[in-house]
Amino acid sequence: MIGIPPAIGLRTFCSLDFQIEVETPLILMLRPRSGEKQWVVRESYVVTPYVGVCEYSDIFGNLCQRLIAPCGEFSIQTTCEAMVSTEIESPLDSGFVEIHNLPEETLAFLLPSRYCESDRFGALALEIVAGAQPGYEQAERIGRWVKNSIQYTPGSSNVPISAAEVNTRQEGVCRDLAHLGIALCRSICLPSRFVAGYLYGLHPMDLHAWYEVYVGGRWYSFDPTSGPNSGGRIAIAYGRDAADVSTFHQFGAGDILMNMDVCVEMF
Amino acid sequence: MIGIPPAIGLRTFCSLDFQIEVETPLILMLRPRSGEKQWVVRESYVVTPYVGVCEYSDIFGNLCQRLIAPCGEFSIQTTCEAMVSTEIESPLDSGFVEIHNLPEETLAFLLPSRYCESDRFGALALEIVAGAQPGYEQAERIGRWVKNSIQYTPGSSNVPISAAEVNTRQEGVCRDLAHLGIALCRSICLPSRFVAGYLYGLHPMDLHAWYEVYVGGRWYSFDPTSGPNSGGRIAIAYGRDAADVSTFHQFGAGDILMNMDVCVEMF
Amino acid sequence: MIGIPPAIGLRTFCSLDFQIEVETPLILMLRPRSGEKQWVVRESYVVTPYVGVCEYSDIFGNLCQRLIAPCGEFSIQTTCEAMVSTEIESPLDSGFVEIHNLPEETLAFLLPSRYCESDRFGALALEIVAGAQPGYEQAERIGRWVKNSIQYTPGSSNVPISAAEVNTRQEGVCRDLAHLGIALCRSICLPSRFVAGYLYGLHPMDLHAWYEVYVGGRWYSFDPTSGPNSGGRIAIAYGRDAADVSTFHQFGAGDILMNMDVCVEMF
Amino acid sequence: MIGIPPAIGLRTFCSLDFQIEVETPLILMLRPRSGEKQWVVRESYVVTPYVGVCEYSDIFGNLCQRLIAPCGEFSIQTTCEAMVSTEIESPLDSGFVEIHNLPEETLAFLLPSRYCESDRFGALALEIVAGAQPGYEQAERIGRWVKNSIQYTPGSSNVPISAAEVNTRQEGVCRDLAHLGIALCRSICLPSRFVAGYLYGLHPMDLHAWYEVYVGGRWYSFDPTSGPNSGGRIAIAYGRDAADVSTFHQFGAGDILMNMDVCVEMF
Repeated sequence: MIGIPPAIGLRTFCSLDFQIEVETPLILMLRPRSGEKQWVVRESYVVTPYVGVCEYSDIFGNLCQRLIAPCGEFSIQTTCEAMVSTEIESPLDSGFVEIHNLPEETLAFLLPSRYCESDRFGALALEIVAGAQPGYEQAERIGRWVKNSIQYTPGSSNVPISAAEVNTRQEGVCRDLAHLGIALCRSICLPSRFVAGYLYGLHPMDLHAWYEVYVGGRWYSFDPTSGPNSGGRIAIAYGRDAADVSTFHQFGAGDILMNMDVCVEMF
Repeated sequence: MIGIPPAIGLRTFCSLDFQIEVETPLILMLRPRSGEKQWVVRESYVVTPYVGVCEYSDIFGNLCQRLIAPCGEFSIQTTCEAMVSTEIESPLDSGFVEIHNLPEETLAFLLPSRYCESDRFGALALEIVAGAQPGYEQAERIGRWVKNSIQYTPGSSNVPISAAEVNTRQEGVCRDLAHLGIALCRSICLPSRFVAGYLYGLHPMDLHAWYEVYVGGRWYSFDPTSGPNSGGRIAIAYGRDAADVSTFHQFGAGDILMNMDVCVEMF
Repeated sequence: MIGIPPAIGLRTFCSLDFQIEVETPLILMLRPRSGEKQWVVRESYVVTPYVGVCEYSDIFGNLCQRLIAPCGEFSIQTTCEAMVSTEIESPLDSGFVEIHNLPEETLAFLLPSRYCESDRFGALALEIVAGAQPGYEQAERIGRWVKNSIQYTPGSSNVPISAAEVNTRQEGVCRDLAHLGIALCRSICLPSRFVAGYLYGLHPMDLHAWYEVYVGGRWYSFDPTSGPNSGGRIAIAYGRDAADVSTFHQFGAGDILMNMDVCVEMF
Repeated sequence: MIGIPPAIGLRTFCSLDFQIEVETPLILMLRPRSGEKQWVVRESYVVTPYVGVCEYSDIFGNLCQRLIAPCGEFSIQTTCEAMVSTEIESPLDSGFVEIHNLPEETLAFLLPSRYCESDRFGALALEIVAGAQPGYEQAERIGRWVKNSIQYTPGSSNVPISAAEVNTRQEGVCRDLAHLGIALCRSICLPSRFVAGYLYGLHPMDLHAWYEVYVGGRWYSFDPTSGPNSGGRIAIAYGRDAADVSTFHQFGAGDILMNMDVCVEMF
């Protein structure tokens, strides 16, 4: 429960530049928390010009920041230094947890959600996992299938599309591949949750998304857009899908985000 | 905060009969809780044959029951007697609450969800509420528009369809009309949540669904399938949409629900 | 996680009669919830005359009822039928859970609280458990020591006294013995929580109190005032000690509770 | 709800040096969170040598850090830069909130707790507040009474003593004065909570404790050990009393904390 060895230190930098015409309420998720898989050593969150910000925890425990962006130029700069694992674990023998033995907090991640219509993927999922051991091996098959079947094309979708649309288009951004993986896993009773965060070595560098599957009593990471076992991740927020964890949510019309810059390095 | 006068007493009865071929895990939401709008005087929850049941609260505070339905005939019978309001309140002057003043627990109900793609309804919603006072009056316009535009046809959809599909089909069951109302409200920054429950006088009698909108510092009920102001409601569960509050969720394949019987009367 | 066999059915009845001179706010805890150890089949909660009641969950998940008791005669009558275990489990081999492996939700039950000054009992506890296997056996030694050292005298204390005072007086009511057991357990890092509820066969019949200790990954019941292994319990509320779970808490002066009647029978 | 103007920037530094003979589990509360009264711009939390740390939120929403301190020299250094108010507000006209109108989350702060035996202070409190307007003015009278009656003597108590003992001794550290203020407030139905944190200008510099009282729909700060209205505070943790929010809690015997250094400056 405690500790993340072998660990490396990652340093992230994220900057958002806005051009605001009308005072605009924003909800942001840009402050990583320490958890079982990461220890935040140092972080900063600077808004310029300075305006009052109110922080709260949402129903999933993510830290959210609420503020009213003032007219004119407005920017947010966050940094984080955290200790994280060098590798994703791949315990092929982690077994399926029967529905009636699942911890209560995992059950919400069995149900369909905005971008993961798991209620429509049962047949496909069964086909993909045919012959696999229930549990981690099923999840691994699904992850591999998504990786092989869907073309990872950064920039290919601007607004989130749902798992069903991803499956039709056969290509997508990291978020889209995660949604499809989640929908498939949930359809065979594997609790599955969406993660927004940073990945070391991502190219082109950007905020990233992947997902976790609950097997053998723990949450394991899957990322159909990266190489196998690639660790070096800092999670910013967890949710049922991208609708729960948008990095920034703007209330009111107009394009206000002018530029976003992300950087992840080792220290 | 306390008290529901003028109140009437409602007595509900709900029975589910299953025919089970393979032991099947079920999650049910059939136990109403007391809250600000209802006081549960008496209730019962009987499973036959008796099997162990485990109850927990989900992330929205709903009571959920987990059990493994045994092979053969299996039934669940619940009853409830509760004091509730005779009328839905309609405070036309309840104003819009600015995003930055919304209580944290309402914010989850501003975002799109599985069946309520509020991110796609902004233009339509603005058209519907044109000229209305921000707040209750907007919500009222939306409720009226849904009632007038979408044909309420009990039995018209077996699986939930999303707000966008409802809007295309122009007809739906109570759940569908609620989803559309919610999507429209959220698209103009009115927090809106789905309610599953009982409605006195519903015809044909069944479990029912409506929604609540947060204006003027409180949640107000809207029901596009019933007459104006019709009270006589017992809420069973709240959520972002029907995906959060299914009365019963079965894991595994096969039609197992043979019969469902609902009855609501005054006492 | 699911199921309570071998189970028996218990039926409880609790009535409180008040004589009120000035409108008095009350907070009550009289509605048992279903949980891992009990399944509530049927329950009722009647206030006479009828006044609005508002129910909420406290930080421990207990259902609390808030109301304003009106002038004159006022009564509350609750009943409950629940399936519960016939026996308390006594798994002597359930081991000590290292602090760093304890689930987060148990940690609050390691700290001192109003009536359990665990910070003052370390030396005594170590003496009592000398030679015992860490875990259940330690808890069992402490329970036995309390049973043997402190005279259980129903009616001997009207206001709660703390564990230290109980230890000095060498006698107490069920609540007092539970407080001492809890303080001793916590002082050697066994998470320990207070339970208010009903016990079948208690003599004289009354509301009862006992405690639970977390070892081997679960909460086990201990009751220094009853015979060994005596099951037949319905929990109403959990907390750190009696300060968290008073059956009724009255705001304002004056003796208003005239009579309380409790009954527990098998069905 | 959002914003803390007029705000100043405070920079804190806290270092703990341990000398450990046996691996020792620790729970710490040393990471301030952003909230309505403070915005954390930058913070760091360094353990040397590096060991895995696990962070979680307790029942009050405080961030807690769990780790196993290794043998030998071990140190923890935290820093924080936050925007906070320059002044405590003193709204003399903020009224008493009737019990039945109190938000649910305040109710836990009406009850007695480990070091605040509010059940024993009713008579004294009524005497102190005689003639005051219900609400803020009562709280202000109590704060002033504590300040005038109890000698603030840094270093006068090493282990926490309860409000009753403080009242007898007539002197205490900041924690003791806060406990007495809390006990008095709760005894007249003013919800009151303990705050551990930093105070700019405190002499001698150390971690500090004060309390907040809920009147007129908000929590207001009171600090009987500082001058009137002195702002410049960063809260680290909230609780019912010091038992809930110890800066560090060590499991197992032995003095391990060798040195603690605290510094607060403006930036």
